[in-house]
Amino acid sequence: RTMYYGKGDVFVYRTYASPLKNIQPIPESSFTGRSNIIFAMDIQIALKGEAFFSSFSEGDNSKVIATDSMKNFILRHAGSFEGATMEEFLEYISGRFYETYSHIDGIVVSAVQKLFTETDIGDETGIRSSPLVFDEKERELPVASLETERTEENEHAIVSRQSGVKDLHLIKVKGSSFQGYIKDEYTTLPETTDRPLFIYLDINWIYEDSRDYLKNYVSSEQVAGIARTLFHELNSPSIQSLIYYIGLRVLERFPQLAEVSFESNNRTWELIVEETSSNEGRVFTDPRPPFGFQGFSLRRSDLKAYNQSEK
Amino acid sequence: RTMYYGKGDVFVYRTYASPLKNIQPIPESSFTGRSNIIFAMDIQIALKGEAFFSSFSEGDNSKVIATDSMKNFILRHAGSFEGATMEEFLEYISGRFYETYSHIDGIVVSAVQKLFTETDIGDETGIRSSPLVFDEKERELPVASLETERTEENEHAIVSRQSGVKDLHLIKVKGSSFQGYIKDEYTTLPETTDRPLFIYLDINWIYEDSRDYLKNYVSSEQVAGIARTLFHELNSPSIQSLIYYIGLRVLERFPQLAEVSFESNNRTWELIVEETSSNEGRVFTDPRPPFGFQGFSLRRSDLKAYNQSEK
Amino acid sequence: RTMYYGKGDVFVYRTYASPLKNIQPIPESSFTGRSNIIFAMDIQIALKGEAFFSSFSEGDNSKVIATDSMKNFILRHAGSFEGATMEEFLEYISGRFYETYSHIDGIVVSAVQKLFTETDIGDETGIRSSPLVFDEKERELPVASLETERTEENEHAIVSRQSGVKDLHLIKVKGSSFQGYIKDEYTTLPETTDRPLFIYLDINWIYEDSRDYLKNYVSSEQVAGIARTLFHELNSPSIQSLIYYIGLRVLERFPQLAEVSFESNNRTWELIVEETSSNEGRVFTDPRPPFGFQGFSLRRSDLKAYNQSEK
Amino acid sequence: RTMYYGKGDVFVYRTYASPLKNIQPIPESSFTGRSNIIFAMDIQIALKGEAFFSSFSEGDNSKVIATDSMKNFILRHAGSFEGATMEEFLEYISGRFYETYSHIDGIVVSAVQKLFTETDIGDETGIRSSPLVFDEKERELPVASLETERTEENEHAIVSRQSGVKDLHLIKVKGSSFQGYIKDEYTTLPETTDRPLFIYLDINWIYEDSRDYLKNYVSSEQVAGIARTLFHELNSPSIQSLIYYIGLRVLERFPQLAEVSFESNNRTWELIVEETSSNEGRVFTDPRPPFGFQGFSLRRSDLKAYNQSEK
Repeated sequence: RTMYYGKGDVFVYRTYASPLKNIQPIPESSFTGRSNIIFAMDIQIALKGEAFFSSFSEGDNSKVIATDSMKNFILRHAGSFEGATMEEFLEYISGRFYETYSHIDGIVVSAVQKLFTETDIGDETGIRSSPLVFDEKERELPVASLETERTEENEHAIVSRQSGVKDLHLIKVKGSSFQGYIKDEYTTLPETTDRPLFIYLDINWIYEDSRDYLKNYVSSEQVAGIARTLFHELNSPSIQSLIYYIGLRVLERFPQLAEVSFESNNRTWELIVEETSSNEGRVFTDPRPPFGFQGFSLRRSDLKAYNQSEK
Repeated sequence: RTMYYGKGDVFVYRTYASPLKNIQPIPESSFTGRSNIIFAMDIQIALKGEAFFSSFSEGDNSKVIATDSMKNFILRHAGSFEGATMEEFLEYISGRFYETYSHIDGIVVSAVQKLFTETDIGDETGIRSSPLVFDEKERELPVASLETERTEENEHAIVSRQSGVKDLHLIKVKGSSFQGYIKDEYTTLPETTDRPLFIYLDINWIYEDSRDYLKNYVSSEQVAGIARTLFHELNSPSIQSLIYYIGLRVLERFPQLAEVSFESNNRTWELIVEETSSNEGRVFTDPRPPFGFQGFSLRRSDLKAYNQSEK
Repeated sequence: RTMYYGKGDVFVYRTYASPLKNIQPIPESSFTGRSNIIFAMDIQIALKGEAFFSSFSEGDNSKVIATDSMKNFILRHAGSFEGATMEEFLEYISGRFYETYSHIDGIVVSAVQKLFTETDIGDETGIRSSPLVFDEKERELPVASLETERTEENEHAIVSRQSGVKDLHLIKVKGSSFQGYIKDEYTTLPETTDRPLFIYLDINWIYEDSRDYLKNYVSSEQVAGIARTLFHELNSPSIQSLIYYIGLRVLERFPQLAEVSFESNNRTWELIVEETSSNEGRVFTDPRPPFGFQGFSLRRSDLKAYNQSEK
Repeated sequence: RTMYYGKGDVFVYRTYASPLKNIQPIPESSFTGRSNIIFAMDIQIALKGEAFFSSFSEGDNSKVIATDSMKNFILRHAGSFEGATMEEFLEYISGRFYETYSHIDGIVVSAVQKLFTETDIGDETGIRSSPLVFDEKERELPVASLETERTEENEHAIVSRQSGVKDLHLIKVKGSSFQGYIKDEYTTLPETTDRPLFIYLDINWIYEDSRDYLKNYVSSEQVAGIARTLFHELNSPSIQSLIYYIGLRVLERFPQLAEVSFESNNRTWELIVEETSSNEGRVFTDPRPPFGFQGFSLRRSDLKAYNQSEK
């Protein structure tokens, strides 16, 4: 008979796992390995065993490993894992399940690996790859909008015009904090001094002169580059502070812009295992919904005020 | 300037809220009210206030109400809420936010109500409405599949054939438990003696004679009716036990079936507030992913074995 | 070896198929049959056969039935189908495929049935079921939003407030037209005098007095009832015209409302087969994206203007 | 009052548009421009004008530009467009709408750009960028699965094990054909000699020795590199033929593999405008659902058979 039970979508984020190396080269690809600074998987597991039949027929749960415990089991072993591939991890946890629970007869486990890509950042010394800031989704999307109306002279005038970039998904693996917020009877969130800040970010901008995009075009790739670079450079105490500094830099780099605005979303992972087989490594899982968001805009006057206050 | 922050998708499930009554009738609708046994909302809230500017410009979080705390605030007040409509609830929590945090200057809050529908159940005394079992999604979908192959006689033979119903989303507001499972170092799930069990259920069946569907058709609506009725009748100690009994009843009602199988998914809400403004009422929120699942099948021999064991 | 190819998501909408009758009753369900005024399926089909190997190994397409032709094959046979269940339809088309193409060795076909529900409509004579207007998605969702700001007197004032209903998915199987629009070099759409109009509809309303919802509540179920009733009553020449009349009726029934507004989306099916095994029946498939939309609002002054013009 | 109507999700694929150049450099980004070999947008447009009121209040469609015609209008003008950015395109089509239809008073148009990335391909001479094959979605995902069972010796044996890569989305802008398939009464698809073939591709592989992944790891990036390279090299007469050759190459490069299998999906665009402002350029739009799919597997014996037949 068909009889199994298990857990789907166990999201595992292990940082600083063993790198994947010693790849046999082929002409069609330049691939030589993965750093595994972020080793991430979405795992589905199902257990089988005759011993589970009584949970169906008798309502006897004494042999039942709660699916919540399966999830904990997988996350904890992600901390002790010393391999570099999903294939090894699936074998590792299967073996540990058989060892730990003698009434398991069969295991079906599968995984999808989520590849996080090292981002390019830059400063006056040039462009380089960041070992801290990663893209979850490799390519953010340019956006644009235009509202016009017919004028009395039978021409058309611009009511509003905006350009932007959406769906930047950036994770910084360490060096962000969140503390000092209001603590009262509604507060259950613990403070963090070093969290892996994960943000979804949409950025929009408005040119001073609405035709300026024709001669002084601001590309979404460049604005995204500024966001990645600032995220790398700053030890941010909040998303609010981070987007403020990204906004200042965008306005500084592009004098043709009048305003830059942000919509951000907080997807910061939750810490599960603090001690792992690698020095700096930890294990995280997806945050519990719902998600926090921020909306913010900066005008050229904000940049001036900031520059004066810095003097 | 644009400046707000907040929380999206705060899922609120308040049971036994005040019923909506005294609706002015119109000819086009027979609507007279809602029982509000389940009063459910998906809420989005954004706070505004000049006091929040320093969190952007200075990284000063001292005025920041964490968005996690906003979520807690909303869920707790769902427990003290005495009204019957979303409009009242939005006004109620807005007022309480202004009272509690003097530095909030503006609030934008919106909600989508999730309507849970009382299900029809039946026994020898007739069909009636259940005050315990509700549909989240009103209409499950019939499914069917057929695999055939050409035979040597140039006819085609059936390799496999199956009928079913998918996407039954059933919630029973009380009278389910989950306890007695294995407790070890991987267990963090607390036992529950009275949980609001919420399941997603797909049920498939196979006829003894593959042409039987032509004269003795088993409809997805009928099988769904059995699932709702058994869910209502049983105080189930687990999903495993529940689907076992649904399967026995399906095989009992339909002697033309050889096998019935299940794929189930556990979406049981999490308890947030135990004491509310109504006697039996509680406040829940969506479960934290990932979700547990079960796969199980029963053949006619299982029904025979069960009937003999009962004698 | 694995070798198959086929087509997924073939959406079949056959109107006036044979009703499903003669259902063996069981105590747990009041189900007695389906009218099959709309018999709708989402079908996936895969063909197998050794003859297809040369299309892989030789790039020889001479035995290939284009997947586009498979879709046409299924849709055409939906017109000649005389049965009442998906199980019969899967068997019918499998048999026809084997007959038509002698090199097919095996067929795997599966389907999900989309159930369209007869809607309740009403007038002074009472509530009844419409044989013309159906719900695709049974339960539309109430929505509400509230924006407030703190006043100088440390109270809070309403900036805007709105109630509504979203995700009404209504199909009227006949009695709608669309013609007389601009024809020029960009026009390829043919006029229709009797189309099965399918709309997605969101309706929002604003009370004259923002606290009126407390004593004269307008429920989303009632507004949806008005939308269904007007859709049934009118032979609409466009969605624009339909929502105009729904709006007038909403304002007439509820004097406590100042404004009603609409966002609608056109999902009208495309006609594939005009002659079927049943008199009025036809076969349709899903419209080709993209989809047209409308936004419109009506104030109380519009109702007055309409009433005066009718005198 | 609110009054607008329009079209959402008009997908525009213009090939060989003017490149984006002359970008002002900034330190944070190495971005210097876009080739615009594929200039792709998802456009939403809404028209406003008092002249449209009679279509609501009178059901008079004489001023109505059908939303289908709006879509055609946008696609045709994508052919004559000579700019390099969405901002220019939105301005261009807005201006043309005002010119063509004197009763339009206002236009709201927005767009999301879909960036297609030039892929890396390789042969004995090295790795280079392909001007023909592009990624729609930059990063395909590695997958793995493992099924085991406990043996009588209380160890566990592998039932099945598989590795793979999923969600490769590859478009080759020219050099593919599809012709010579069966033409009969169900055929409406026209033959094509030079189509922009767009495929979704999942590839899975099985090692000869199930522990071989530990010493001779085959990475998803390498298999994807083979798929991109073969797609670039071949003028494929069908997806079937393309995946056959990809499979042969994978087995050739990796002697440690016993089998490679494919699931592919056809998303080939539809040609709308053949003559554009650039020599080779054309305008396409998204294919009409439903989509065709293929399943196929190759074993080492297939590679031997192929090599022998080639001698």
